[in-house]
Amino acid sequence: MAVNLPPPDPASLYAVAGVELGVAMAGIKKPGRKDLLVMRLAPGATVAGVFTRNRFCAAPVILAKKHLVGPVRALVVNTGNANAGTGREGLRRARAVCEALAKSIGCKATQVLPFSTGVIMEQLPADRLIAALPGLKNCDWRDASEAIMTTDTVPKAFSVKVKLSGGVSVVTGIAKGSGMIRPDMATMLGFVATDAKIAPAGLKKMLKAAADRSFNCITVDGDTSTNDSFMLVATGKGPSVSSKKDISLLEEAVTVVSQRLAQAIVRDGEGATKFVTVAVERGRNAAECRRIAYAIAHSPLVKTAFFASDPNLGRILCAIGYGGIGDLDTGKVDLYIDEVRATRSGGRDPQYREEQGAQAMKKPEFTVRAVLNRGKASATVWTCDFSYDYVKINAEYRS
Amino acid sequence: MAVNLPPPDPASLYAVAGVELGVAMAGIKKPGRKDLLVMRLAPGATVAGVFTRNRFCAAPVILAKKHLVGPVRALVVNTGNANAGTGREGLRRARAVCEALAKSIGCKATQVLPFSTGVIMEQLPADRLIAALPGLKNCDWRDASEAIMTTDTVPKAFSVKVKLSGGVSVVTGIAKGSGMIRPDMATMLGFVATDAKIAPAGLKKMLKAAADRSFNCITVDGDTSTNDSFMLVATGKGPSVSSKKDISLLEEAVTVVSQRLAQAIVRDGEGATKFVTVAVERGRNAAECRRIAYAIAHSPLVKTAFFASDPNLGRILCAIGYGGIGDLDTGKVDLYIDEVRATRSGGRDPQYREEQGAQAMKKPEFTVRAVLNRGKASATVWTCDFSYDYVKINAEYRS
Repeated sequence: MAVNLPPPDPASLYAVAGVELGVAMAGIKKPGRKDLLVMRLAPGATVAGVFTRNRFCAAPVILAKKHLVGPVRALVVNTGNANAGTGREGLRRARAVCEALAKSIGCKATQVLPFSTGVIMEQLPADRLIAALPGLKNCDWRDASEAIMTTDTVPKAFSVKVKLSGGVSVVTGIAKGSGMIRPDMATMLGFVATDAKIAPAGLKKMLKAAADRSFNCITVDGDTSTNDSFMLVATGKGPSVSSKKDISLLEEAVTVVSQRLAQAIVRDGEGATKFVTVAVERGRNAAECRRIAYAIAHSPLVKTAFFASDPNLGRILCAIGYGGIGDLDTGKVDLYIDEVRATRSGGRDPQYREEQGAQAMKKPEFTVRAVLNRGKASATVWTCDFSYDYVKINAEYRS
Repeated sequence: MAVNLPPPDPASLYAVAGVELGVAMAGIKKPGRKDLLVMRLAPGATVAGVFTRNRFCAAPVILAKKHLVGPVRALVVNTGNANAGTGREGLRRARAVCEALAKSIGCKATQVLPFSTGVIMEQLPADRLIAALPGLKNCDWRDASEAIMTTDTVPKAFSVKVKLSGGVSVVTGIAKGSGMIRPDMATMLGFVATDAKIAPAGLKKMLKAAADRSFNCITVDGDTSTNDSFMLVATGKGPSVSSKKDISLLEEAVTVVSQRLAQAIVRDGEGATKFVTVAVERGRNAAECRRIAYAIAHSPLVKTAFFASDPNLGRILCAIGYGGIGDLDTGKVDLYIDEVRATRSGGRDPQYREEQGAQAMKKPEFTVRAVLNRGKASATVWTCDFSYDYVKINAEYRS
């Protein structure tokens, strides 16, 4: 079902020195399924994170934020249960998992960051998680990307090498998510690691810059999850990064990996048959361009038209109209589907024929481009269509 | 498909003295279908209106707003074409329809209010509308409610009598709409008329009060249309209304009619199988309660769970969490499905069993009640579920 998203080739995923991966089957929701991932970090590794702004944020999010202030020695991720909407008991259980892992690897519980994803409002079977820890098996990034899947149909992993002044550094990441996707501050779960050595403040800045150009630009259904987390790890086992140029090169590499992962989430969006780039150009500022882009990308009417390959472009104009720009001059708006100009000055382009729009929208990937002609700013959002299968998947998710 | 929405019984719809209704088949989109409604008003009638805030508002909305400043002698409504996203040419065509109707009934074009609903971004076949005007046939409110249907499956009309100090007054209304429904300022098309005599300023106030408790509290898919309009007509042929008590009585009657019409739109929401009342209580102010209520009512994940009668209540908590209250104490939130308390203090109520939630949600109508426990304000929103048929209807709407 995923749109142009082949599973990652293990050979294309570079190992990151200083990160040791282990998976286990804890039987959290179903037996016989990899549902537990532990990422051990070498001493001296630096970690930065951004998290959901949902007020009902999950117990692991609360703990991970708290533990992020000191040095981090491990990340533990489970699927099958989100440990959200679980109150104090949820916190207690998340803490118990951190404690058990800390004990087994010889660090403090506060040096472990927990992450959970799955059903909300059910207590985490922490005992099963803890029982599975001794059985962790070493694995590679491809296995790790599989271990964090929930309704995902394809594992998501991507890797690049970047040449820095001190040598070649690797950046490798994995992500999961295909529904409840409308990151506001962060994403579903995304973990990107590099062997570069970089100061904590620089890493944090890099993470935010990458998030704003990747996980913060995607939407499947407009729902900001309770568990969204995006973490960036720098183990310091590779080249040192301090010059402006190196920082910029590494940031670009981290952003590319993050974008590929974020786009993979949309390509694997629940029931997705189309991958659509929504670009809003020539707005007065980036914020208003983003608002319009999200209005288009969230409209169920627009998304069902994408599914039908129906160039019912009035629905896109309508979404632009309610996108929150109070003084928008609709008479100046141009709308394109790929290279086809459909509207000009707010009305149908006299040259436009509907077959052109239909042809462009029949492709599995296309770009909707709205040109506001009122400034120099722009924004891009990636989304997917809304199909029968979205309803099917979400109406039957728990059964 | 509509949820508990029988077609209106013509005998239950009271005529309004001073309003003369006429319908015709203009063949706007398809031949052999009533698609043109004219409401002629007696001299001296007063009209108030609220309209969409969509910046891509339709040509008829622009004209209707403009013409509303003087006395109004007729309203003309067509289906099959929204005359939106049609630029200057759209305005010219809407004006031509007003001119033709004005000529045939002997008034000025500026005394006619035009309304259109249907496909966006196609030019209105004004010639066909104008050609159909001489063939208008007198009709009753039931016929009128049929003439304004588009994807509606059931006509929507409702009527009450109200005893005022000067005698009995009638309030009768019709509405249309089932998709692209998330009125922000007004609704799809709603027309309510009374024979009462009331000053223009009082009528305007009454309209806003009624809209805020009816058409502004519904959502099907979150899309604010380009053509939303809600009009209140007072012909002045019946009892005079000036005392505080009479005004309050009439306002209540107008609100009841408007609420029934607004709820009918949700009951007939595209693909709807459930009619759901979302009540948010004990918030700090009404605005924050509305935000949370709309977050729940717009969430595709929540709506697909409604469709499946699946008490996947974590999705509702999640929506509450991203509903925009930055300092929400989730530990205080209680959640009910009808009388079943599902969460207490932000976590699962120990007494709650999932069968109870499932049983409540299996009914075609139920209430989701979120109690925030941080103030005294509340808000209610009506919505429907998200089914396979929503996708089907909107993916195939134009074919």
